[in-house]
Amino acid sequence: MNQAIQEQPGTKTTERLLYSPGLEGVIAGESTLCQVDEGEAGLRYRGYAIGDLAEWSRFEEVAHLLLIGHLPTQNELDSFSIRLRSHRVLPEPVQRFVDRLQPGLHPMDVLRTGISLLGLSDPDAQDGSHEANLRKSMRLLSQIPLLIAHSYRVMSGTSTQKQDESPDFAQHLLHLVAGHKHGDIGAAMAQVLNVSLILYAEHEFNASTFAARVTASTLTDLHGAITAAVATLKGPLHGGANEAVASMLIEIGSPERAEAWVREALAQKRRVMGFGHRVLRQGDARSAIIQRHAERLSHLCGDHSWYDIASTIHRIMREEKGLHPNLDFYTAVAYLLMGIPRELSTPLFVCSRITGWCAHVMEQQEHNRLIRPRALYTGPAPRTYEPLDRRP
Amino acid sequence: MNQAIQEQPGTKTTERLLYSPGLEGVIAGESTLCQVDEGEAGLRYRGYAIGDLAEWSRFEEVAHLLLIGHLPTQNELDSFSIRLRSHRVLPEPVQRFVDRLQPGLHPMDVLRTGISLLGLSDPDAQDGSHEANLRKSMRLLSQIPLLIAHSYRVMSGTSTQKQDESPDFAQHLLHLVAGHKHGDIGAAMAQVLNVSLILYAEHEFNASTFAARVTASTLTDLHGAITAAVATLKGPLHGGANEAVASMLIEIGSPERAEAWVREALAQKRRVMGFGHRVLRQGDARSAIIQRHAERLSHLCGDHSWYDIASTIHRIMREEKGLHPNLDFYTAVAYLLMGIPRELSTPLFVCSRITGWCAHVMEQQEHNRLIRPRALYTGPAPRTYEPLDRRP
Ligand SMILES: CC(C)(COP(=O)(O)OP(=O)(O)OC[C@H]1O[C@@H](n2cnc3c(N)ncnc32)[C@H](O)[C@@H]1OP(=O)(O)O)[C@@H](O)C(=O)NCCC(=O)NCCS
Ligand SMILES: CC(C)(COP(=O)(O)OP(=O)(O)OC[C@H]1O[C@@H](n2cnc3c(N)ncnc32)[C@H](O)[C@@H]1OP(=O)(O)O)[C@@H](O)C(=O)NCCC(=O)NCCS
Repeated sequence: MNQAIQEQPGTKTTERLLYSPGLEGVIAGESTLCQVDEGEAGLRYRGYAIGDLAEWSRFEEVAHLLLIGHLPTQNELDSFSIRLRSHRVLPEPVQRFVDRLQPGLHPMDVLRTGISLLGLSDPDAQDGSHEANLRKSMRLLSQIPLLIAHSYRVMSGTSTQKQDESPDFAQHLLHLVAGHKHGDIGAAMAQVLNVSLILYAEHEFNASTFAARVTASTLTDLHGAITAAVATLKGPLHGGANEAVASMLIEIGSPERAEAWVREALAQKRRVMGFGHRVLRQGDARSAIIQRHAERLSHLCGDHSWYDIASTIHRIMREEKGLHPNLDFYTAVAYLLMGIPRELSTPLFVCSRITGWCAHVMEQQEHNRLIRPRALYTGPAPRTYEPLDRRP
Repeated sequence: MNQAIQEQPGTKTTERLLYSPGLEGVIAGESTLCQVDEGEAGLRYRGYAIGDLAEWSRFEEVAHLLLIGHLPTQNELDSFSIRLRSHRVLPEPVQRFVDRLQPGLHPMDVLRTGISLLGLSDPDAQDGSHEANLRKSMRLLSQIPLLIAHSYRVMSGTSTQKQDESPDFAQHLLHLVAGHKHGDIGAAMAQVLNVSLILYAEHEFNASTFAARVTASTLTDLHGAITAAVATLKGPLHGGANEAVASMLIEIGSPERAEAWVREALAQKRRVMGFGHRVLRQGDARSAIIQRHAERLSHLCGDHSWYDIASTIHRIMREEKGLHPNLDFYTAVAYLLMGIPRELSTPLFVCSRITGWCAHVMEQQEHNRLIRPRALYTGPAPRTYEPLDRRP
């Protein structure tokens, strides 16, 4: 950690302010949602170990845990799922926007715009109460997969999928973005996607969640805060990394080429996507979970190539840089095996993280304080104004 | 300041993290753009005192200062203005969005969506270089006034204004949002709007700018960061306050009712909009400037009512709470006198602050570090997972 107490020049009072670049190690607020626990559990959502959640839950249970506050009973889960299904429809202005999309747009820019548009159509648009925010969150959770899949189809010119009315969130999502998958392999893919959604659901004050909280702290509306989060997630240093990993694996193409490729990247001092983490310097428990599932899926699919490329990169990065893979790394392997288009990797992250984001927005607004830090001024010293006609 | 060093529970290392609610007094990064100087100047943009800039500059000069880095010469100003004028057009998909807007939408939600859409049409959409970001900034600076004015007209069902080709930014904007204003009064209004734009252009790490920087710190695109900023500005604790002040003045209606109204609000422990500031506890130099202009405009217009209501509120707030007006307070008086629709108060803020936001996004990305703080976990202690069929 590189913290320093700085004296802010130019203020009359010489108050001493703390400065840590990138806010590393600075606590920006309180949260009851998750605990980044570098101990055994790795990560807990509202007290439950991530390993247990990923092993035993459907994603809808985790969504319920984050949004409503507790793990659902069977009855609660049933009505939660029914409500989610009832929201599987896009309002007409959003559908119109989707229908006219042109090829070549970035799916995350489309998603950002689509979510902002959803805010304009939301029946609770101007209601900022907790209950209204919960209704908005449930709608978004159902609408986002449709928005992603329909936009992708229009932009890529592929034909519309047959409606899939699967009640299961992961299964429905898999169908939407990768088409119908049959038999045992299809079931295994839906299960791995379910795990991936659980792992992606929430991670404390990561950049996109923190952006959502800064936005929410002015008491603006939930869709605005979520739009900010989507805009933030797109960046390659954050959610954009899972797409970047997929691109890297595709570019490398075969396991024999992996070692040379990484050594070359490191020699050129390029960042290898999917490695490193601001908080988890000793490795990420979620990465180990998704790695296991990616390996299993490789066996089932009889396609070891992506996994072998990935594990070679993993080994070299550990040896050469001491860096560990983050959640995005083996997730890319799993998504490639499922036949998910590379460009939809980061949008899929949104399908899950929307739960954490919405829970954070509600939490922020229930105990609100405006988030407004200071800057360390490093610009020109005071100087005399020269009117236009006297400027050289 | 209410800072405390906290021990983060659950981490293996007992690293000591700083916690200050709302990041009050915490430095979150460096900036060369403005200096909040509680000394004589009050505020400086790149070293120039705000009073001088407001007194002697056209808004375009300040935009040039913030975006390009120095005050322009006459030649530079001319070509900057010509470039701005050449961008006064909305791309077709954005125009189509505007044409179908329904009455009753929040203008800031429309603006957020419209800016996100502008990102999809921008010719530099996937180029994140400094030069491309500068081009995008210039386009936004010209497109935002059109977006605001056209949307307002469609939503309110008022007829389209005759094109105004005024080269002057403030004059053009005034025409767009309040119709053509004649003679000396028209000239004075454009001048006060010019001052208001200069005062609103930049203010360090305020919440919307900070949101833009958090978003930009993942290396996402400029339109995404600006969309986040617009979403943030909307909130009543931030830019939304200028509209809230206008609503309050309209609700109070006449100077005789002002005192009773404020005393009642304070008795009910309601916040009086347009007062208080996270950083400027001793008052805001910008407020004194816009107050002077609002008063002068009242004389010129022969309409003292808004100003008298405002100055009564001002007096009571000082006496009762020791709180000072912030920039939004007397700005609302000036905007009401200009005939600017109340709902456009916060969008007008965007017309100006877009310069500071864009400059911050470029600055952030040129010396980037991911902005990723920590949270203080206050949720349930570790607990045992119960599978669905065993939940009570
Ligand atoms: C996630 C990330 C932004 C965290 O960054 P951070 O906490 O700001 O850490 P820094 O950028 O200061 O990096 C610290 C050091 O590790 C190096 N490093 C970090 N991640 C690296 C990577 N993926 N590849 C190569 N080197 C890396 C940096 O170059 C730096 O080395 P230096 O001190 O010699 O310059 C960073 O690890 C990264 O860019 N990873 C790749 C993108 C990614 O996978 N993002 C998803 C995160 S979940
Ligand atoms: C701008 C603002 C959010 C700064 O808030 P902050 O630094 O977080 O300060 P706090 O909210 O902790 O307020 C400190 C105290 O002043 C009071 N206060 C602050 N602004 C007030 C206002 N406008 N009216 C009445 N009381 C106010 C608070 O109630 C609080 O009192 P308490 O300690 O007895 O509860 C706050 O002053 C405010 O809400 N102002 C009105 C909205 C506004 O004009 N925003 C535009 C800002 S440029």
